[in-house]
Amino acid sequence: MYVYADNAATTKLRPEALEAFVRTAEEYYGNPSSLHTAGQRAKEELNRCRERVAAALGGTAREIVFTSGGSESDNQAILSAAYFGARKGKRKIVSTAIEHHAVLHTLEKLKKEGFEIVLLPVGERGIVSAADAEREIDDDTCLVSVMLANNEIGTIQPVKEIGAICRARKVPFHTDAVQAVGHMPVNVKELNCDYLALSAHKFGGPRGVGALYVRTGTPLKNLIEGGAQENGRRAGTENLPAIAAMTVALETSLSRLPAYTKRVSALRDELIDNLSKIPHCALNGDREARLPGNVSFCFEGIEGESLLLLLDEEGICASSGSACTSGSLDPSHVLLAIGRVHDVAHGSLRLTLGEDTTEEDVAYLSEKIPRVVEYLRNMSPVWRDLKEGKRTYIL
Amino acid sequence: MYVYADNAATTKLRPEALEAFVRTAEEYYGNPSSLHTAGQRAKEELNRCRERVAAALGGTAREIVFTSGGSESDNQAILSAAYFGARKGKRKIVSTAIEHHAVLHTLEKLKKEGFEIVLLPVGERGIVSAADAEREIDDDTCLVSVMLANNEIGTIQPVKEIGAICRARKVPFHTDAVQAVGHMPVNVKELNCDYLALSAHKFGGPRGVGALYVRTGTPLKNLIEGGAQENGRRAGTENLPAIAAMTVALETSLSRLPAYTKRVSALRDELIDNLSKIPHCALNGDREARLPGNVSFCFEGIEGESLLLLLDEEGICASSGSACTSGSLDPSHVLLAIGRVHDVAHGSLRLTLGEDTTEEDVAYLSEKIPRVVEYLRNMSPVWRDLKEGKRTYIL
Repeated sequence: MYVYADNAATTKLRPEALEAFVRTAEEYYGNPSSLHTAGQRAKEELNRCRERVAAALGGTAREIVFTSGGSESDNQAILSAAYFGARKGKRKIVSTAIEHHAVLHTLEKLKKEGFEIVLLPVGERGIVSAADAEREIDDDTCLVSVMLANNEIGTIQPVKEIGAICRARKVPFHTDAVQAVGHMPVNVKELNCDYLALSAHKFGGPRGVGALYVRTGTPLKNLIEGGAQENGRRAGTENLPAIAAMTVALETSLSRLPAYTKRVSALRDELIDNLSKIPHCALNGDREARLPGNVSFCFEGIEGESLLLLLDEEGICASSGSACTSGSLDPSHVLLAIGRVHDVAHGSLRLTLGEDTTEEDVAYLSEKIPRVVEYLRNMSPVWRDLKEGKRTYIL
Repeated sequence: MYVYADNAATTKLRPEALEAFVRTAEEYYGNPSSLHTAGQRAKEELNRCRERVAAALGGTAREIVFTSGGSESDNQAILSAAYFGARKGKRKIVSTAIEHHAVLHTLEKLKKEGFEIVLLPVGERGIVSAADAEREIDDDTCLVSVMLANNEIGTIQPVKEIGAICRARKVPFHTDAVQAVGHMPVNVKELNCDYLALSAHKFGGPRGVGALYVRTGTPLKNLIEGGAQENGRRAGTENLPAIAAMTVALETSLSRLPAYTKRVSALRDELIDNLSKIPHCALNGDREARLPGNVSFCFEGIEGESLLLLLDEEGICASSGSACTSGSLDPSHVLLAIGRVHDVAHGSLRLTLGEDTTEEDVAYLSEKIPRVVEYLRNMSPVWRDLKEGKRTYIL
């Protein structure tokens, strides 16, 4: 048996999206900047994609900038707001302790340049408080950045409320919606955001393409200088086949979203219930306000990496946290932020279900994971110490 | 009849490359950062691609950073060298007047930040002088950036010589090889470069993917912050299907390069000979030191844009200069740099032949273009003035 439960790391390319990629590469091979018919046809197709992506998010075509992915979108939004703010003497940025590294590392870079970075706590449930955000916003604040859904523990943040506060205080608001788009309803107007970043390969689109929503009137600075593509906001020949594939993947995801949410949330809840029976474990993140596909646990007395390798031998693709930080020996900043101590944070497991996940997959996961956890614990000196009372159980 | 003669704007995706894209998307769907088998298989394939691209360029795998394309590669190289130089008090950058906008606009941004930018002239032939470059290099110089082949007029620059000078003077040297790779031999060691930028869609690979060669020991700063992908030098999930497709496109191009060079250069020369018979026109750029597929002319008394539209009606896809600046009313900076006055620069035509170009295509271009030029001149008040002696011919 083989179960791919790492959909938050990347999803398989949807057949409809691959078909759109191939068709677009063949039919619209012209450079959208070229004046001849082949170029103009490509430009028209690009504009149609832009309108469709905008419509799917509740924005207008002019507000969509196509990028190479979520990281680029996050970088460009944050740097734009920061440098625009700095020109007006505003150098404070409010964000959260559980943002993706595309956000956190950009903020670290800005900190070195003299910006004040405030990372709000998220508490045990892994959810930031809108009141905390409001309290931190002052006249020096040039940006608030809060992710819509966390990539490790799947918690959904009160972006709508924080966006409304920012709008009222006239502070630009960015949301990293990379994990959310295609997995929950996302409407830029309802979210009150000025910038929203998304990545195609998280909802069945291709790698290497994403978008940045930029609300009309919001400043945007080029991250990549050069030609006047994307209305002068992102240089480089437009990646039309991938953009068309992303457009189809987005529309397909959204058309299936109600059914997906119902079915996958039920599978998720079943899996959470089953894994919760393992002794001395804890679900990471809120039980209710979480993405349909996200299951994240910490197991006391084991190493997450060993767990992954043994699960892999059983045909289970899972991760310990974010794919982007695998290989790092540091425990996840997200798990630390929800109060897990180092040892416990190291024993984490993330299973991210997707459209292809079946009832049989969940049964298989529910059968194998407890056995592998038990097997590892039987070999673990830490677990022996816990059992013998030489250490105290935390979970 | 239909002739695509805009291969410098973009090439059609090679069937081998498309096949590699589809196969990789299906076979290697894991995230290369994931620890499970699907991820590790993707990582191995990514490493194989990196080795193959490195081998094709004469570098080592560690020296290759995969990016979203030529513009990103150029931006990252230039900003890295500039900011690294500034830390040591070096703020002078030497480049040329005919660089692509991905280079020139990055330099303009740096100029606003206090860097001294020297753009070397290129003379009538459109070729920069290595001696001029040497003269400008001083102890304040943190970067020299000279393109390998020009995107508008196809002239090949003395990069090897300038690279050797930079190496002797210990000044970092960047070359924008976007138009060159796949169209002429490119070896990073022979070119003595520290940074080399390339873009896949210029040699039959997909859009949205490129590479930056960074010589071992050369400083590189992230343009996109986030995950630790690309050895921590470029964040964002690696675009493996596109990278695999680029790898195949590059190898295919190089395997065909000797035959391509011979055949396409002959077609180019034939077309240049035929179009040179049009009265009052001039070839742009050097006749010898130019890319195999590049034919660029200025025609007195006509507007390039009208010429393009009429040629388009005859089924000919051409451009006036760079695709990235089409729609701009400014005359090409490249044509101005080779001494064309504004009026003449506006009457430009770029035909870029490719692997698919046939003898029949050249015959068709040679028949149609003189007729369309004549037709436009017959309607042109400028041409009437020239004929009646009220204006003086320049060409």
